[in-house]
Amino acid sequence: MLIAELGWSQVTTRAIAERAGLPHGTVSYHFRGKQELLTKAALYTIEHLFPMSELEAITTLEDLLPLIRSWLGNRDATGSVGAGVLMEAIHESKWNPVLRQHLAAILREYRRVVAEVVRTEQSRDTLASNLAPEAVATLIAAAGDGLLLHVLLDSELNVTLATETLFALWRRRSS
Amino acid sequence: MLIAELGWSQVTTRAIAERAGLPHGTVSYHFRGKQELLTKAALYTIEHLFPMSELEAITTLEDLLPLIRSWLGNRDATGSVGAGVLMEAIHESKWNPVLRQHLAAILREYRRVVAEVVRTEQSRDTLASNLAPEAVATLIAAAGDGLLLHVLLDSELNVTLATETLFALWRRRSS
Repeated sequence: MLIAELGWSQVTTRAIAERAGLPHGTVSYHFRGKQELLTKAALYTIEHLFPMSELEAITTLEDLLPLIRSWLGNRDATGSVGAGVLMEAIHESKWNPVLRQHLAAILREYRRVVAEVVRTEQSRDTLASNLAPEAVATLIAAAGDGLLLHVLLDSELNVTLATETLFALWRRRSS
Repeated sequence: MLIAELGWSQVTTRAIAERAGLPHGTVSYHFRGKQELLTKAALYTIEHLFPMSELEAITTLEDLLPLIRSWLGNRDATGSVGAGVLMEAIHESKWNPVLRQHLAAILREYRRVVAEVVRTEQSRDTLASNLAPEAVATLIAAAGDGLLLHVLLDSELNVTLATETLFALWRRRSS
């Protein structure tokens, strides 16, 4: 995807039309300029990187572990492009409030679903009831994105073991 | 700082000379172009954002909590500029291997020091001995940077509670 290859600021609607094999006029007719096109393309990619449907299907924190592992460990072309688009979008969002609000809303949705799982575990007494569900969800989301950030800087980093350690803390507490 | 204000790609050596009140020739004489100047300036800022001397002074994981809190909660001009420079540097590092290697080395140093504290806690039997010290350190560093990333996208996020929750997991386990 051009956003990840060239960086957001270097992509032009002309380059997008060329890559898609479309006349430039067709692309510029459908979107009000480059920012709208890239914002929509980036949000579409990010929402498909970590599909809400997969997240909504989980019922225990343990089920979250393979999802985060594939989020971090996806080192094929799709995974790298996805992470690249995400990083470009986060960077761009400083100057693009529409994009920033959308990214914040996606993150809130993820946290809401994870907080629900935390509440379910607490009602089953498999997780301490004095942990704030929203705080646990915030922590898991942040650890996931922070590990992604750090493995992009240092490909040697053992992110799998770090993720397992986070979940081991809960597991041991409930045993 | 211009990197945070304008974004890395928009800064010129001419703008830096103007801001510093120096002739352009003086700035371009001392650095081999914009990339070298910005790389050095960004690394200097980042190393002072989270000083190694403060990190090396801690002896328990508990002591790390106020450091991370000030890392995340520093909402004055300096804090925002620092976070802005860090985000610009991480983004730029995709295309700048020298910068990426330096950032990776800084992170490795932070993790090494935190892993030492984990080992000390384990030797005192205040932390479970079957947790890998490097994995705990990786997790703490990732959670810190992930929370910073998420609070930049959503200023309403309660990062303090999330940080406390991470540390509460260890605290309760050792009691």
